[in-house]
Amino acid sequence: MTQGLERLSLNQKTTNSWSVAEAVDGCVRAGIPAIGLWREPVQAVGVAAAAKLVRDAGLRVSSLCRGGFLTASDPDERTAAVADNRLAIDEAAELGAPCLVLVVGGLPAGSKDLAGARQRVADAVAELVPYAASRGVRLALEPLHPMYCADRAVLSTLTQALDLALTFPDVGVAVDTFHLWWDPNVAAEIARAGERILTYQVCDFLVPMPADNLLARGMMGDGVIDFAPMTAAVAATGYAGDVEVEIFNADVWAADPSRVVSTMCERYLALVAPYLA
Amino acid sequence: MTQGLERLSLNQKTTNSWSVAEAVDGCVRAGIPAIGLWREPVQAVGVAAAAKLVRDAGLRVSSLCRGGFLTASDPDERTAAVADNRLAIDEAAELGAPCLVLVVGGLPAGSKDLAGARQRVADAVAELVPYAASRGVRLALEPLHPMYCADRAVLSTLTQALDLALTFPDVGVAVDTFHLWWDPNVAAEIARAGERILTYQVCDFLVPMPADNLLARGMMGDGVIDFAPMTAAVAATGYAGDVEVEIFNADVWAADPSRVVSTMCERYLALVAPYLA
Repeated sequence: MTQGLERLSLNQKTTNSWSVAEAVDGCVRAGIPAIGLWREPVQAVGVAAAAKLVRDAGLRVSSLCRGGFLTASDPDERTAAVADNRLAIDEAAELGAPCLVLVVGGLPAGSKDLAGARQRVADAVAELVPYAASRGVRLALEPLHPMYCADRAVLSTLTQALDLALTFPDVGVAVDTFHLWWDPNVAAEIARAGERILTYQVCDFLVPMPADNLLARGMMGDGVIDFAPMTAAVAATGYAGDVEVEIFNADVWAADPSRVVSTMCERYLALVAPYLA
Repeated sequence: MTQGLERLSLNQKTTNSWSVAEAVDGCVRAGIPAIGLWREPVQAVGVAAAAKLVRDAGLRVSSLCRGGFLTASDPDERTAAVADNRLAIDEAAELGAPCLVLVVGGLPAGSKDLAGARQRVADAVAELVPYAASRGVRLALEPLHPMYCADRAVLSTLTQALDLALTFPDVGVAVDTFHLWWDPNVAAEIARAGERILTYQVCDFLVPMPADNLLARGMMGDGVIDFAPMTAAVAATGYAGDVEVEIFNADVWAADPSRVVSTMCERYLALVAPYLA
């Protein structure tokens, strides 16, 4: 492990073209001790094989991304979504992931009933909580930037995600700088979240945004976010977990993944790690 | 005036290619009793001439867009911005606009100090308040969608804009469906705003967003917003002002403005007006 990288985790999405084996190898070569896995590449190799790859390399799993998409109003779609989330919980357990990140879903096609969608998320999470507890996996509700409210996640603020998480004894939240940096209350809400913070994810917010707003995440230092205040606020809660770098970005994905990883380590050391102490 | 349009106002930006004279004429032809003016087209014809055009046509001015851009840290830029806002206040007074909408500005180029930018907005508004009061113009702080936090407005929620407005006796807020529809607290914050609501602006939020996110505003009915709850919440405060339709959208701007206006009237009558009662 490289000095200063003790809490860094490579979220697989940052090196989107790499298989689990390649990403594990990339972490080992870079001295990164943890990895945030995604279901699709894990399923491509098989959950047991992915778990073995990570374990044999001596890496921690920081999270599994992602469950969620729980807003369907159609009963069959809803049943399928809940079943798929149970499967994701099973996968997280087998991988040794401490939490399953939930991107809760947007408005169903054609619907404008935002309050209804939010209520269905609360209901579905309630349904999943006992199963997650039985498998030793914690659910991490992820508030997404409000620009994704309609198509990705009707949980739009940390306040809202935390209010829902706190209605259960053991549900937590995912804190991601990209989604939350603009929120005037974010430092106070991070403090309120305290031990409910299950994962801390960092990347930058690019201005101007790329044409596809799903790919507006950038390498730390390439956008407008000051990582000091949010990172210090997370550290002040006593959060001792990993810091995942999760970047959706066409240019990052087109670059050599090994170079992306080395840039990620440099930027993390310069812009994030100093505020974790 | 056409039945049902008694409170509709054409924000000039919706018919972006029209001069003040053309927009005034378009309102008269469509039976729209009010207009939301923009500084650039007003200055193009001259403030006195624009005021006369509106007055002679028997239209109300619902607002003047826009002042703001008050986040500069450079002293000279800041002085220039405050002076320009004084000029905008003069223009609003001469036009008979009840309020000047302030889009407060984003991060200065190269800066990541969001808290500092927000403080400079508060300081600049404090500086402008006495002048606005002396001219009989109210300042309307407009919270913009969080996706514009870095480049347009560091006021990102109604809560935040209202908290700032309430530190002064006579400053208000602009409530715009596009910017606020995602906010889980928006109905409660509209209620809290009460008489501080100086303008209510409507347009839709398009999904997927166009490549240029500044042009993501759509005609009511073309996006994901349910106008009922926000409109009813605004009406419940006793708001008796005009309802402006303000659309930034390349397709709308490329269309025949007269057709845009007639579509706007139809959509307003179907999707907004019923909830004003």
